Amino acid sequence: MALIVHKYGGTSMGSTERIRNVARRVGKWVRAGHQIVVVPSAMSGETNRLLGLAKELSPAQTTNAVMRELDALAATGEQVSVGLLAIALMNEGLDAVSYAGWQVPIKTDSAYTKARIESIDDQRIRADLAAGRVVIVTGFQGIDGEGRVTTLGRGGSDTSAVAIAAAMKADECLIYTDVDGVYTTDPRVVPEARRLATISFEEMLEMASLGSKVLQIRSVEFAGKYRVPLRVLSSFTDWDIAIDEEARSGTLITFEEAANMEQAVVSGIAFNRDEAKVAVLGVPDKPGVAYRILGAVAEANIDVDMIIQNMSREGKTDFSFTVHRNDYARTLDLLKTQVAPATGAAEVSGDPRICKVSIVGIGMKSHVGVAATMFRTLSEEGINIQMISTSEIKTSVVIDEKYMELAVRALHRAFGLDGEPAAA
Amino acid sequence: MALIVHKYGGTSMGSTERIRNVARRVGKWVRAGHQIVVVPSAMSGETNRLLGLAKELSPAQTTNAVMRELDALAATGEQVSVGLLAIALMNEGLDAVSYAGWQVPIKTDSAYTKARIESIDDQRIRADLAAGRVVIVTGFQGIDGEGRVTTLGRGGSDTSAVAIAAAMKADECLIYTDVDGVYTTDPRVVPEARRLATISFEEMLEMASLGSKVLQIRSVEFAGKYRVPLRVLSSFTDWDIAIDEEARSGTLITFEEAANMEQAVVSGIAFNRDEAKVAVLGVPDKPGVAYRILGAVAEANIDVDMIIQNMSREGKTDFSFTVHRNDYARTLDLLKTQVAPATGAAEVSGDPRICKVSIVGIGMKSHVGVAATMFRTLSEEGINIQMISTSEIKTSVVIDEKYMELAVRALHRAFGLDGEPAAA
Repeated sequence: MALIVHKYGGTSMGSTERIRNVARRVGKWVRAGHQIVVVPSAMSGETNRLLGLAKELSPAQTTNAVMRELDALAATGEQVSVGLLAIALMNEGLDAVSYAGWQVPIKTDSAYTKARIESIDDQRIRADLAAGRVVIVTGFQGIDGEGRVTTLGRGGSDTSAVAIAAAMKADECLIYTDVDGVYTTDPRVVPEARRLATISFEEMLEMASLGSKVLQIRSVEFAGKYRVPLRVLSSFTDWDIAIDEEARSGTLITFEEAANMEQAVVSGIAFNRDEAKVAVLGVPDKPGVAYRILGAVAEANIDVDMIIQNMSREGKTDFSFTVHRNDYARTLDLLKTQVAPATGAAEVSGDPRICKVSIVGIGMKSHVGVAATMFRTLSEEGINIQMISTSEIKTSVVIDEKYMELAVRALHRAFGLDGEPAAA
Repeated sequence: MALIVHKYGGTSMGSTERIRNVARRVGKWVRAGHQIVVVPSAMSGETNRLLGLAKELSPAQTTNAVMRELDALAATGEQVSVGLLAIALMNEGLDAVSYAGWQVPIKTDSAYTKARIESIDDQRIRADLAAGRVVIVTGFQGIDGEGRVTTLGRGGSDTSAVAIAAAMKADECLIYTDVDGVYTTDPRVVPEARRLATISFEEMLEMASLGSKVLQIRSVEFAGKYRVPLRVLSSFTDWDIAIDEEARSGTLITFEEAANMEQAVVSGIAFNRDEAKVAVLGVPDKPGVAYRILGAVAEANIDVDMIIQNMSREGKTDFSFTVHRNDYARTLDLLKTQVAPATGAAEVSGDPRICKVSIVGIGMKSHVGVAATMFRTLSEEGINIQMISTSEIKTSVVIDEKYMELAVRALHRAFGLDGEPAAA
């Protein structure tokens, strides 16, 4: 008997027919002798519907009090899901009980719309499991010290599931979603992309942060911190496939170095076209210049991703960084009207039509020449590299957006990731 | 400065545009110097939508555990409403805060789907009001001793509002709805029906229990028990009408005998075609016969309304009662297969095509001949009376359903209730 946390995404919970299938799948695991805690997301579209109503009532939603109410509102989506799933499970002949985050309780800080989990009291859940019940807990939410409902931000149900698995020392956390695992790259761009049977925690972290939408990044961080064995798998297989087969499907996120021994140098290619680049050129290179540029950007609540400062030449330096494409116009304006005059910069420029392509692989740690292979491959395709950023297990480049597919396909082939073309 | 509870029904909360109007109306009261607690219902259709999803998943919803989950599910409808209304109020420049029943807390027993309020802790609400906030509390729900969400049953938001007004000793509880008060009878049946400026608590209780849908009967009982001044008024007037005018509109439910001094003998005509009549005829009249008939009915969970036993003749008696029309077939079957054999009854009969028409008036207490006027009026219209039941302040008759409108119009005229025909 194992204790297993199942997490189902909004698409998997998208209709009563799909909820019934979730109930049957959970029932299969229970009948195989396992204790199951289920964390379902809101039915697909529900969170957007609720926040859309709020937006109609109050277009500017910036005060702390408004965000507190947005959280109370948005949290109801998952509360509907847990009630419906409990009812569906009982209809399948299982005993089940639902919990909202505040009932567990899952305690968080008070950062409304992006709260962080502080503690989880698993006493009631354990008692229910011991009594033979399936326990269903809302994802995405908790309760703060004031007794107010908080939410963890978009994709927070992944984090809830992993946090519950960590608190309960679950044997595994299964993230059921609408894809059947983590791929070497997006199969829509590269038909030869292959599903990875395992991926290391560090690689998954890079893949998640680089734009692979399979798992929310905070849930991966959480899994890493508490070493929660995490598996991404599909909720759209037949619910009654053999339990051993299901338990081995998808992609397992591992914490064992050994598991990576025979792995390729590069595990996957990530890409992201949500960014734009901006540059402050010819800045007098004095101590504190980076702070004066990026401090102003941070104060305007603009998130910065890649940051590159070239070596200075003749006492002047160039400073480039990327921001979300939605923040591009605002950033450019800020740099021109405030930062350039304050720093004595010669010029401000930018381009929103870029993309970031990254190779990710724990094998890069111990292999030389991986970045060189990347640059050569792009060069052979005639693709100009605009920015470069590296870490121990990834190398990212910024290129013209129009070359994105070409670059991803070429790199996928160059690093030996191509498998059989995926079935359409 | 007064402390006033506003309650808004589902139609009044039915769209963001309507919620905005509620916010503006509440704002007007706040700016006039009052402390306001608002209890909104779920947006119209929402509770049915949620329970409909549950029904798709589990057609038979009878166990206590299923009802517990239905409550957790259905309670989210009002939780959405309070969040949206808080956001709308803040957009109008007011400070506001929402509470779900469990946050107040409003403590109830554990009778899921029909829980009863046990206590309300008004400490947090009072602190928020003192800090200048509008406090918005979910209707329809509370929390039981196990920390589970409970609901009060259909129309429970009226009860929540009155209970909160009672706990806080509010100066008045305003029930905003889609009609502008309590009428002498349904204006759709009698165009000459008039709105009552006041109605006594006892009369309101009879009107509510006899089928007038304006107020949920438990809320009237609650108002009576705690002497909460209650006013029914329309949420569809322009939100910016003068506050004095609004405060005097609708119908006030009073507890002052004096207020009824000049009132008509009969205040209103209620009617109801949700019932069916059944009769057990020729039952040997022995001690315990009523119990043997009605005990079996109660055990089958069938609610009985009117009960009439004729004087016995030749050692036999006839026994008639009315049940909800939905229970008609089941009741008839029960009487035929179980009750008649057990009691030695000669015959079982019934008719679902009946209606109940009632005259209600606290003046009846001190006026003789009121019932006689009712019977004469019906007789003059050629309407046969099938059953009669009386109390201190009402007389009800059961007649053929097809005469309902005719009977109501004739009685309305006979008791001097006709006013100017209502504008279409």
